[in-house]
Amino acid sequence: MKVAVYRKEHFNAAHRLFNPDWSDKKNDAVFGKCNNPNYHGHNYELKVRLIGEVDPETGYVFDMKILSDLIKENVLKKFDHKNLNLDTTYFKELNPTAENIVVVIWNILREKIEKKYDLKVYLYETERNHVAYPI
Amino acid sequence: MKVAVYRKEHFNAAHRLFNPDWSDKKNDAVFGKCNNPNYHGHNYELKVRLIGEVDPETGYVFDMKILSDLIKENVLKKFDHKNLNLDTTYFKELNPTAENIVVVIWNILREKIEKKYDLKVYLYETERNHVAYPI
Amino acid sequence: MKVAVYRKEHFNAAHRLFNPDWSDKKNDAVFGKCNNPNYHGHNYELKVRLIGEVDPETGYVFDMKILSDLIKENVLKKFDHKNLNLDTTYFKELNPTAENIVVVIWNILREKIEKKYDLKVYLYETERNHVAYPI
Amino acid sequence: MKVAVYRKEHFNAAHRLFNPDWSDKKNDAVFGKCNNPNYHGHNYELKVRLIGEVDPETGYVFDMKILSDLIKENVLKKFDHKNLNLDTTYFKELNPTAENIVVVIWNILREKIEKKYDLKVYLYETERNHVAYPI
Amino acid sequence: MKVAVYRKEHFNAAHRLFNPDWSDKKNDAVFGKCNNPNYHGHNYELKVRLIGEVDPETGYVFDMKILSDLIKENVLKKFDHKNLNLDTTYFKELNPTAENIVVVIWNILREKIEKKYDLKVYLYETERNHVAYPI
Amino acid sequence: MKVAVYRKEHFNAAHRLFNPDWSDKKNDAVFGKCNNPNYHGHNYELKVRLIGEVDPETGYVFDMKILSDLIKENVLKKFDHKNLNLDTTYFKELNPTAENIVVVIWNILREKIEKKYDLKVYLYETERNHVAYPI
Repeated sequence: MKVAVYRKEHFNAAHRLFNPDWSDKKNDAVFGKCNNPNYHGHNYELKVRLIGEVDPETGYVFDMKILSDLIKENVLKKFDHKNLNLDTTYFKELNPTAENIVVVIWNILREKIEKKYDLKVYLYETERNHVAYPI
Repeated sequence: MKVAVYRKEHFNAAHRLFNPDWSDKKNDAVFGKCNNPNYHGHNYELKVRLIGEVDPETGYVFDMKILSDLIKENVLKKFDHKNLNLDTTYFKELNPTAENIVVVIWNILREKIEKKYDLKVYLYETERNHVAYPI
Repeated sequence: MKVAVYRKEHFNAAHRLFNPDWSDKKNDAVFGKCNNPNYHGHNYELKVRLIGEVDPETGYVFDMKILSDLIKENVLKKFDHKNLNLDTTYFKELNPTAENIVVVIWNILREKIEKKYDLKVYLYETERNHVAYPI
Repeated sequence: MKVAVYRKEHFNAAHRLFNPDWSDKKNDAVFGKCNNPNYHGHNYELKVRLIGEVDPETGYVFDMKILSDLIKENVLKKFDHKNLNLDTTYFKELNPTAENIVVVIWNILREKIEKKYDLKVYLYETERNHVAYPI
Repeated sequence: MKVAVYRKEHFNAAHRLFNPDWSDKKNDAVFGKCNNPNYHGHNYELKVRLIGEVDPETGYVFDMKILSDLIKENVLKKFDHKNLNLDTTYFKELNPTAENIVVVIWNILREKIEKKYDLKVYLYETERNHVAYPI
Repeated sequence: MKVAVYRKEHFNAAHRLFNPDWSDKKNDAVFGKCNNPNYHGHNYELKVRLIGEVDPETGYVFDMKILSDLIKENVLKKFDHKNLNLDTTYFKELNPTAENIVVVIWNILREKIEKKYDLKVYLYETERNHVAYPI
């Protein structure tokens, strides 16, 4: 009997979208105001979904307190109140679009969560734009 | 032409998480403050998804008014403003975790809804924790 | 590496549910107050999901600004502040239920978005009722 | 010891904004797409606030169930799933802007609620626009 | 230059509404399903508003981290995951209606926050019912 | 007959909280992670309230489209996708706390809106922290 469980956390971060191999003009054309060299920022909402068997002794798929702590320790500590481009190793050479951020977070969590759990990550950049990985 | 339709309802209930086969100490270690012997409670948000063919005469997969009434009659009447552990038969010997509640609700509704409809249930225990069944 | 990206837009519209082949009595029995001949209305929330490869140069699956403009040009311009029954060609002979609207919108957008992107549309008619297509 | 209590209800309605004394051109200039002669519509959220003494016997300022029923009977029954311009007496000669609707609702409720309660009404026309009366 | 600052916190609790001086019949008539002797529960949202001068050195009226900790220490520690009737001293002889809870919380916080700050407390019992004190 | 009308807009910005007259140590002690020298960011929700007479010809206190354009032109153009410390003149020597931002926005709008309208501004920095000015 498999059930999906979801946990939401959030973090606030600054970022800038650009491709260092492109001219300023092309970066402006593609990324518009998201290419502001002085950065802008977001309240990111992060939702993590695990699928697994319900443990008959606890009635849990996964303890939400432990999942929350695991996300805080491995993701929020690195990203919350940070500049994604400057303060993290992940986006030194990777554009911090929502798509790239969600894949980075999935890779971080995948190493920390037993393989018997199916893992999916959703990231809300604004109330109107969000992404999910894997599909 | 199959479409998925979703209906949200809610109920307010008290519950306590614990395993009667365990010591108090182990129950406290695993369930923490959710193990309060005097109970605590939640505003549960319940979302029911049906998938089916769109009826060409009505343009409906399923009449949302009928689905709402069916959920109220079979689920809310049993769970709303109740103590899940004490006032329901379902959780006399089953720990009322969100995982177990969502499976119980799915089983209740599965008997009331024609098999031609695919059925999935989502249960939000807090704004940050929710579950879904089946996967 | 495929990622799902979602964009939300909204429109406000009037509609009336009825089947012209039926008697008034049957229309009232099936559609109730949604059959008001003078129409009623909703704030529709529309969510569009694309699945595709992340472009390594931009870090985007699809530029959300372009997706937003595309939805505005092809859907909102036709439906926003309109009477779905009277002001659109789509619902002259098709009942504007949420189910039928979501399929119409999917068909409109499917023609405008390259086939390499998987497309799904979600439509929220009220806070409690929504639909999705395809399943 | 006075406390403020709030109750939210909602209704779905169609309307059209225009001034019959004006030319079509002026109506279009002022009301834009809200002047669609075939109407458009909204999910209106209605919030009613009463201020009064807490009854020492019940701990209530006002029973929320009774307030909800009173709003349903006197407001929702008249406005829900209606065309505000055509199906109500209130907007035969009054433009159904959010401002005018909120004053109409306040007047309706003021007659039904004892004067010892201070009454205020909030009306949300969209997620981004709302009004309140009195100030 | 006075500014109002607001901080939201939440707690989950069980409660039962009844008046011990009344018969069961009268309690049922007045409190309905809220009078369930086995309790029910809610996710309470708590919003605290302070009004004060903006400190020219910090740009703060009040440090939100300190306000959050103060609410957690003085309110959430007493009420979160508790049975309001059984586990707290406040509602031994006071009916735990939203009105009474909000006044109790205001009294608790008023003692902990300097008098130069104007204090108001809002309590959301469900998405549709909330209260505020003082008026 | 005065009615209050509210319009919500939003902007995304980066900022850093610190006092240049203080040591790094004191800035860290007071502003914590908000003092990150590389900035962090938020999705700011901005709500503007006007109070005025309902115009009998339009039924409007103020045209929400005009208010929205006025906010976009005078506030969002300056703050959206900007670094508040570096890209604006307002926070060169003023700490961009929510309190200071809300007063700055009020001052900007007060000059653009006729004095006959009472003006109040609400700023939501996160879902849990917001401010309002004037009180």
